[in-house]
Amino acid sequence: MAIAKHIKELMNSKGSSVIRKMFEEGIQLKAKFGEDKVYDFSLGNPDMPPPEKIYQVVNEIAKDNSKDRHAYMPNAGYTETRKAMADKVNFEQNLTDDSALNENHVVMSVGAAGALNSVFKAILNSEDEVIVPCPFFAEYRSYVSNFGGNLIPVKSKKDFSLDVEAIKNALTSKTTAVLINSPNNPSGKIYSESDIKELASVLYEHGKNTGITPYLICDEPYRAITYNGKKVTSVFPLYDNAVVVTSFAKNLSLPGERIGFIAVNPKCEDAKEFIAACTYTTRTLGYVNAPAFFQKVVAKCWNADVDYSMYTNRCKMITEVVKNAGIEFVEPEGAFYLFCKAPMPILQENKQFIINNGDEEICDEFAFCDHLKKYNILCAPGSGFGCPGYFRMAFCVSENTIKNCAEPLQLAKQSW
Amino acid sequence: MAIAKHIKELMNSKGSSVIRKMFEEGIQLKAKFGEDKVYDFSLGNPDMPPPEKIYQVVNEIAKDNSKDRHAYMPNAGYTETRKAMADKVNFEQNLTDDSALNENHVVMSVGAAGALNSVFKAILNSEDEVIVPCPFFAEYRSYVSNFGGNLIPVKSKKDFSLDVEAIKNALTSKTTAVLINSPNNPSGKIYSESDIKELASVLYEHGKNTGITPYLICDEPYRAITYNGKKVTSVFPLYDNAVVVTSFAKNLSLPGERIGFIAVNPKCEDAKEFIAACTYTTRTLGYVNAPAFFQKVVAKCWNADVDYSMYTNRCKMITEVVKNAGIEFVEPEGAFYLFCKAPMPILQENKQFIINNGDEEICDEFAFCDHLKKYNILCAPGSGFGCPGYFRMAFCVSENTIKNCAEPLQLAKQSW
Repeated sequence: MAIAKHIKELMNSKGSSVIRKMFEEGIQLKAKFGEDKVYDFSLGNPDMPPPEKIYQVVNEIAKDNSKDRHAYMPNAGYTETRKAMADKVNFEQNLTDDSALNENHVVMSVGAAGALNSVFKAILNSEDEVIVPCPFFAEYRSYVSNFGGNLIPVKSKKDFSLDVEAIKNALTSKTTAVLINSPNNPSGKIYSESDIKELASVLYEHGKNTGITPYLICDEPYRAITYNGKKVTSVFPLYDNAVVVTSFAKNLSLPGERIGFIAVNPKCEDAKEFIAACTYTTRTLGYVNAPAFFQKVVAKCWNADVDYSMYTNRCKMITEVVKNAGIEFVEPEGAFYLFCKAPMPILQENKQFIINNGDEEICDEFAFCDHLKKYNILCAPGSGFGCPGYFRMAFCVSENTIKNCAEPLQLAKQSW
Repeated sequence: MAIAKHIKELMNSKGSSVIRKMFEEGIQLKAKFGEDKVYDFSLGNPDMPPPEKIYQVVNEIAKDNSKDRHAYMPNAGYTETRKAMADKVNFEQNLTDDSALNENHVVMSVGAAGALNSVFKAILNSEDEVIVPCPFFAEYRSYVSNFGGNLIPVKSKKDFSLDVEAIKNALTSKTTAVLINSPNNPSGKIYSESDIKELASVLYEHGKNTGITPYLICDEPYRAITYNGKKVTSVFPLYDNAVVVTSFAKNLSLPGERIGFIAVNPKCEDAKEFIAACTYTTRTLGYVNAPAFFQKVVAKCWNADVDYSMYTNRCKMITEVVKNAGIEFVEPEGAFYLFCKAPMPILQENKQFIINNGDEEICDEFAFCDHLKKYNILCAPGSGFGCPGYFRMAFCVSENTIKNCAEPLQLAKQSW
């Protein structure tokens, strides 16, 4: 008896595991040095409290002792909750009448991560391919490989916008889906309407040629969090075989409660079968159903008024701090991450960390993140996100953490 | 784009899906004929309300608006919750001092189903085998096949006690685990201490011969629900490489909330690595962590006083009703299921439903369950549980449902 070989290898590999490890190290560092002496940008754990309405509704539902309050319900979730989620998607994507979703287009899930696993289990045959533009949420690798699929990372443009030509070139007869995440974790990029239109036409064209029109899976937990009035493109009106997966982890600050959903475009060729399959995989993967209590909560709170100006301020602050340290980054349009270029080493002893990445020299960002750790600054290396030479700072942390990080970050940069 | 081929096949297959389908049909039948005219024994959805303490604590935690109340925590769960679960297992298994568990032996999970998926993902290499005595919870098939493993059903004795000799004969160099469920769903059987001891010695012997001592995975959501003062055998003192997976779905009537845990025997050879692997798979399978709110609830409620006499009464009532209809069954020792033999058809036109099952003739229980449905009686066919010719009645339903079912059951039997 022993752990499975491939799991052992994955656990020991660099990359995605590093983020969670840092989060757990951060807890230990804070216990050792004090909360205010550790600058933990490792994890997208929203530090904004949930809106007041969440507390009200949680208390209401806590008082509800009606029969079946905590019982099983159909695997797809409560009808009233699925109706509310359909309303949410219709509102966000401006869908009415024939193009609108109803409860039968929705499966409630254990967060967006649970949603993606249910979807990939439902659609992936062995060796099927899922194309994802770089950078991408590190965990996608697991979600796709869990079910025998291959994640195909594809380069993006310099500003991290979609390189539709690159996606086109990556399409094969094995392509089951293209997975996009907008606003993007880790880059903060919002994919433009014109890029999505171009992508849609490439995918339709591929469908005509091969008979397989890929799903376009839109992972949208950050949809509500945008800067400078930017809006997230609504994909359903632009592409039929589109699916939204999302959660209330980020917009309502409920990541620990594991509540999200899958919604399919009513115009999707096999919408009904897709929902039936996701309901089945939600059951058989052992989620069984999304947690009952928070299904009731989000049914009433999905349209709660939330003020994200807190993140706007933090975004301004951290871009200042990082700019002042002479570190390059791409200005985020949404979400709460800053994706930075690991700076080239200054000290002779660190020149070893200049490495070759195809046709350019970059800095080994693992080494730089280790270096930052000496200053109690915790960041996530970019390789996990498909972008070696970069690192991610999650700025869903207190203003003090950002402010007080300025000096140690300068020092770290100067002693690199 | 289309659903994965194997998922399509599984969705269209008879067997396990049938239970959930019945549950959902039951909801529709009740809407049509009225709650009191449908006798729905399809699903183990506890009809006993959660104990009063649950409501108290849910209300307490609802009032807690401290920072991070709904945030991410380490993937294994809150330390305080894992400590409480260690206390629970130590109490149940009478473990003290060196043999006792602490928080590092526990991973919180999305119910027992989530726990089993995390465990199998952690330990199964492709084509590894998991032995399970018949009958067994139908969903085990999916939980093992999800990760490329093979479930190896093994016959039990006539009274559904363990046939250790049969298990011994099924052991191979591919056997990674033996999975037991006691009290058993669907038979209600509790595996005796002497049988577990015999099993342990067979597994140790196999370990000596092959170098691989299988895990013994004990799925125990029904541990607290037993009849006639029967106690569930504690496995940790009897076998080192033992694991408990369980939930609060049945003992605290919280199935919809998806809260459970994995606990490893501290004496297990690779306890530390096992927990690390299950923590990793809990993350990468998209559970991420057990729902935060109910982690807090069960930390305070695991030892709540619960009176299961309601199930004792129901057990007496249903055995009366089924006996009076002339249907054979095995007396349950725990859980809330009655596992019955589908009676041989009386009518000439139904003789076609007598089928051959190895060396004996049995009744096609799918046909009998379909027949029962005409009388609005919903039961789960036994083939899904590895026992063709049987059907399961979940008696976690109102006394009226049981009482009022007597007449239609008699009628159904007579017109079969």
